Amino acid sequence: MLLLKIGGGKHINLDYICQDVASLVSQGEQVLVVHGASATRDEIAQQLGVPTKTITSPSGVSSVYTDGKAMDVFLMSYAGLVNKRIVAGLAKQGVLAIGLSGVDGRLWEAKRKQVVYAVENGKTRVIRDNLTGKVEKINTDLITLLMDSGYTPVLCPPAISFDNEMVNTDNDFATAVIAGALGIKKMVVLFEAPGMLENVADERSVMKEIKKEKLGEYMQYAVGRMKKKLLGTQNAFENGLEKMYWGDGRIKHPVLSALEGKGTIIN
Amino acid sequence: MLLLKIGGGKHINLDYICQDVASLVSQGEQVLVVHGASATRDEIAQQLGVPTKTITSPSGVSSVYTDGKAMDVFLMSYAGLVNKRIVAGLAKQGVLAIGLSGVDGRLWEAKRKQVVYAVENGKTRVIRDNLTGKVEKINTDLITLLMDSGYTPVLCPPAISFDNEMVNTDNDFATAVIAGALGIKKMVVLFEAPGMLENVADERSVMKEIKKEKLGEYMQYAVGRMKKKLLGTQNAFENGLEKMYWGDGRIKHPVLSALEGKGTIIN
Repeated sequence: MLLLKIGGGKHINLDYICQDVASLVSQGEQVLVVHGASATRDEIAQQLGVPTKTITSPSGVSSVYTDGKAMDVFLMSYAGLVNKRIVAGLAKQGVLAIGLSGVDGRLWEAKRKQVVYAVENGKTRVIRDNLTGKVEKINTDLITLLMDSGYTPVLCPPAISFDNEMVNTDNDFATAVIAGALGIKKMVVLFEAPGMLENVADERSVMKEIKKEKLGEYMQYAVGRMKKKLLGTQNAFENGLEKMYWGDGRIKHPVLSALEGKGTIIN
Repeated sequence: MLLLKIGGGKHINLDYICQDVASLVSQGEQVLVVHGASATRDEIAQQLGVPTKTITSPSGVSSVYTDGKAMDVFLMSYAGLVNKRIVAGLAKQGVLAIGLSGVDGRLWEAKRKQVVYAVENGKTRVIRDNLTGKVEKINTDLITLLMDSGYTPVLCPPAISFDNEMVNTDNDFATAVIAGALGIKKMVVLFEAPGMLENVADERSVMKEIKKEKLGEYMQYAVGRMKKKLLGTQNAFENGLEKMYWGDGRIKHPVLSALEGKGTIIN
């Protein structure tokens, strides 16, 4: 089984991705899709006059602040617009896909963070209305039920908390938990870069291979969201993953190219 | 099995509805939910600056005009916001619900209308970019697969066309097709009225019972959307339904009250 994580960047080409998923599925490969939708979310949030806010933790990691209004926008963009676009895009390629959020069938169960600390102008503030949590449990029965019947699941956040609230969650971490829960060995991650870059300003500086033991060292190359991606990658390997392919989600044959090693292979 | 159709009006109380579904499910009843989201859609469309447009057919039936932009808003509100709110609301009541649009797993397959005629200022206009269709085929295997495993499906439009386009579709007609496909005999319809009213201005004028053979006659009482609801009702009975309960979606115990005959019973 291949786990495919599609980033939520603006220039990700969903049509190309759907074409590749279709050719893998037609060759008998089972593909489990997890996607983001951050660019779409930010755009809709802007248009609705409730722009996305980020907060920075005392340890320097930034994340999205999700109050009730932001959760509405989150549902609209992730579970609504992008999820169904991917499902319809796969249908167009002959793949029988089924889109689900982590809330559906308690697919992703998370422990809500009751309190979050945010640093603002050098002061640490306590935030209590942030709907966010960490995924701890996957409904693998539901995923297996659907895949055994020939469906290609297309998953996205939010998750559902153990207390039945919808919560935003780190998608890379959730994907790592899924890999572990299903014993998945192989994963493709698509984003808006040709791979892990040694020099973030130079797209030709792709690192061909990274040894998983050295992931920690590569944190120095990581900027912004890439930091979380590296943490998620470490989690996935801790959970039993054997090979991860980072590839360019903007080009033709994004999945097949990544699997051929045209991006960065982590093993 | 009970088919529950929840209208998309602004004052429909989803919490009360979820409570009733939970008590039915805990008594061993299987419930299949279909919902609308028209008020939410219109609100979001307004906020995004692309207000919902309606067109009127030469025969006088009005319907929503769904171009690409309107389809985006449709996905956000139906498959995104309202669908997941119901799923999470049911989770809160202990019901393992799973939300799906008609696009997922080709649940609702529709024949797209290539051309729609609209009357405007007395002139008939041909519209070609209206993403709309009529549901013809239900993926009953998927619904049965999920229900047999203990899930309560929560369904909504859009449908997917035979040519893999996402299409808006008359929800009342789609529900009637579902009833037929699954051999459902009993259906509750909740909207923003205590039942079918003899006098639309008087909420006390609820008709207690309507014989299905007489549905055609009641078209005279029907105003606006109620006309479509009556047509959908006729379709459902043509498809084998035996009893339909119209009830108030704004009150406490909306489903149980309807089943007790506090609204309008059609048989």
